[in-house]
Amino acid sequence: MTDTSFGQACAERVADAVPRFDQITFVGIGLINGSLARDARRLGLAGRLVATARRRETLDQALALGLVDAATPDAADAVRGADLVVLGTPVGASGEAARAVAPFLRPDAIVTDVGSVKARVLDLVAPHLDTRRFVPGHPVAGAETSGPAAAVEHLFRDRWCILTPRGDTDPGAVARVAALWRAVGSKVETMGAAQHDKVLAAVSHLPHLLAFNAVNTAGDVEHALQGEVLKYAAGGFRDFTRIAGADPAMWRDVFLHNKPAVLELIGRYVENLSALQRAIRRNEADALFDSFTSARAIRRGEALAAGASSPGMP
Amino acid sequence: MTDTSFGQACAERVADAVPRFDQITFVGIGLINGSLARDARRLGLAGRLVATARRRETLDQALALGLVDAATPDAADAVRGADLVVLGTPVGASGEAARAVAPFLRPDAIVTDVGSVKARVLDLVAPHLDTRRFVPGHPVAGAETSGPAAAVEHLFRDRWCILTPRGDTDPGAVARVAALWRAVGSKVETMGAAQHDKVLAAVSHLPHLLAFNAVNTAGDVEHALQGEVLKYAAGGFRDFTRIAGADPAMWRDVFLHNKPAVLELIGRYVENLSALQRAIRRNEADALFDSFTSARAIRRGEALAAGASSPGMP
Repeated sequence: MTDTSFGQACAERVADAVPRFDQITFVGIGLINGSLARDARRLGLAGRLVATARRRETLDQALALGLVDAATPDAADAVRGADLVVLGTPVGASGEAARAVAPFLRPDAIVTDVGSVKARVLDLVAPHLDTRRFVPGHPVAGAETSGPAAAVEHLFRDRWCILTPRGDTDPGAVARVAALWRAVGSKVETMGAAQHDKVLAAVSHLPHLLAFNAVNTAGDVEHALQGEVLKYAAGGFRDFTRIAGADPAMWRDVFLHNKPAVLELIGRYVENLSALQRAIRRNEADALFDSFTSARAIRRGEALAAGASSPGMP
Repeated sequence: MTDTSFGQACAERVADAVPRFDQITFVGIGLINGSLARDARRLGLAGRLVATARRRETLDQALALGLVDAATPDAADAVRGADLVVLGTPVGASGEAARAVAPFLRPDAIVTDVGSVKARVLDLVAPHLDTRRFVPGHPVAGAETSGPAAAVEHLFRDRWCILTPRGDTDPGAVARVAALWRAVGSKVETMGAAQHDKVLAAVSHLPHLLAFNAVNTAGDVEHALQGEVLKYAAGGFRDFTRIAGADPAMWRDVFLHNKPAVLELIGRYVENLSALQRAIRRNEADALFDSFTSARAIRRGEALAAGASSPGMP
């Protein structure tokens, strides 16, 4: 074993050990930050858990639920003493959140976030924070509910957490944040922010937009049918309504702050939907069959796997 | 108690008793008919269970899995002795299935079907069968798999089964078919075929089309991202891929045979999606927030309930 690989093995062992923080401060305490607080307490990951949020009601709820030890609307008070600060506001508010806490941070404090969009978060946060100590993160987990009362243990178990550090991000800070997510059961991956935003637009942002729209479209149907629509919700619609129960403010910000990737996908989606619409109108049975068969193959990972391994593709 | 309500109560009691058939013959034996066969055997609903299908392989599988007592590609052989015949082919094949079995039916045999579209099934079947003994049915249940091997017990438990008899359908036949579905755990409702087709277009057919299309669109993304797309499937996309695993032939026929209702809904869907797309492009934060809030309200049944109770609406 060379010195280098020995050193690397040691670094990995340290990173994988259960991390321990003096104080974790949550800026915003809804489903994601609240669930992380529950797991941090259960696993003893921090000496103290503190929350700050704009609404007094949210803080009272977080305290009543026992998510944190202390809660204050004063961001300065909240982050004093914290060696980890987790921004958990809607993406659009993350710049303001960073600005509010920055002057009061411990010099060694690490800041991370849990937003579903990553390139924009860095743009918003960078003017206010030392970006070397900021580790952008996205736990790919969720539920059809929101707010502190929705927080549950084990929300992140076996789910991906994607970190998107820049070239200048402190590797030690990245390792500490990665260890936190591993401690709560997540599989941690690292990629560029732009790559993250394109992948998530396809697997999460577009599907959520389509589900919101499907539920609204079903809600539009003739009055005579409305009573029946939810009553007979089959498998298909139940999955859609579940997704559409998600937090409106969070999703508004996702679409506004991952605009190019989302608009590009909506464009492709509508083109493809128009082709199906035309095939239905013209009774093109084979075209429909082939399209559905292709979707099934993609679901099974066949087409993607085949695509991924085929040589000579751009 | 008047005589009428007493008679009605007796009829209901008879209809709710566990039904017993001499022989149930399944024409087509995939997920739905196969699961019904499993429950019929478990509950002792028939003296004999028989399957017929075009493909020998399907019949061999059904026999090997113990779904039925006998299986034959000869439709005439299969229905001889049956007092209940369940058509379980894709909707487009139901006319041909009815034609094949009609000459060999017992005079007292009841025929029903399990198709997801109802007006068209009646059109296809009517030229061949005595429609007074044909009870159109739709168990609103499914799974992301298809074929005899996908058949499971309890698939219909706590699910709706919608029957769409016509004015001339024998009430005794309707009661027998309703009792069968109640015996396997379903909640049975009766409505007109046209009403059924409009409601199911909104709650099932459109969502399936959107899911097939979302999976194909995700499969379209740049080659560099393909490997990541399924790896990071968040809640949203996982629900979509699940739906997209359904049987392509079945769904092809659903869209071709519920064409007006489906095309009408695709039209509305695209209009609504264009409005969202425009709001994203123009940063119309409030419009997005309101739209997602409305979807959440519909999910909770609030908007629909409010709509249903508001006076003076058409």
